[in-house]
Amino acid sequence: MNEIAKFIREVPDFPKPGILFRDITPLLEDARGFTSAIRKFVEATPAGIDKVVAIESRGFIFGAALAYALHLGFVPVRKSGKLPWEKVKISYDLEYGTDTLEIHRDGLKKGEQVVLVDDLLATGGTAAACCQLIQSCGASVSRVLFLIELKDLNGRSKLKDYQVISLLKL
Amino acid sequence: MNEIAKFIREVPDFPKPGILFRDITPLLEDARGFTSAIRKFVEATPAGIDKVVAIESRGFIFGAALAYALHLGFVPVRKSGKLPWEKVKISYDLEYGTDTLEIHRDGLKKGEQVVLVDDLLATGGTAAACCQLIQSCGASVSRVLFLIELKDLNGRSKLKDYQVISLLKL
Repeated sequence: MNEIAKFIREVPDFPKPGILFRDITPLLEDARGFTSAIRKFVEATPAGIDKVVAIESRGFIFGAALAYALHLGFVPVRKSGKLPWEKVKISYDLEYGTDTLEIHRDGLKKGEQVVLVDDLLATGGTAAACCQLIQSCGASVSRVLFLIELKDLNGRSKLKDYQVISLLKL
Repeated sequence: MNEIAKFIREVPDFPKPGILFRDITPLLEDARGFTSAIRKFVEATPAGIDKVVAIESRGFIFGAALAYALHLGFVPVRKSGKLPWEKVKISYDLEYGTDTLEIHRDGLKKGEQVVLVDDLLATGGTAAACCQLIQSCGASVSRVLFLIELKDLNGRSKLKDYQVISLLKL
């Protein structure tokens, strides 16, 4: 059994009926579990990376620890209205409606190599939008890393232009 | 000059007129700046700590990296409705209205020693509420760490029962 799997708590009907939520907090709370996950992210990161980009807000947890572990800068992608400086925005479709993500335009420099990190690969829409944001800044997405991938939702189809690694496939 | 200060960008009138926003993203984006801040947090953490608790969502960035650096578990405090399991909640007053924060009841165990981490000490209301949440779980707040403290807002007055350390006072 994947050693991360034992730390993931399944919560039925959250946030709404019919959804089986994967709760990562037991992993985070366990020093060995959390350290082990970050070490696996380190191993999954190619050489020559300049920055770690992560998605608000659970992505921040893994992305920031990975940036520290690799002695790299960290660039947050945030929901609309949170970042104060000059931004690049992208809107993308959700199941119902749309969402907007933003990155600081000066957060990445032309030609920089980036790993994008998030906790969960579901439909892939959020990560695909983030990849576009990164490229809009002139940087390249070297790899996209997830803690958990929900295989049935086929999020990889939206990320087929990128190298995707997930630590746990469910 | 405090070496963190040079990485903090002042943005006038954000998020609304009259507010001088301290933008921490230049610090995060700089590998040396970010690493240096986390090392200072490590030095500011006393021995014998069991868990790092941090506040959504900028607090996650520093708290998660600190937890990894110290090989500790990480426990998130989140806004209402985000955590899926059994929770302790607290509501506290904002300038206008109230806000609610939540922590998983099983995130901390009775008697555990905790450091609480956030990016900014302003009025101290959010951090004081988090300290109460931690104590409601039966754990103790050994220290409260901030990247930036806005001295004029006197947030320490709401945290006088705790040891507070801020890396940069403005």
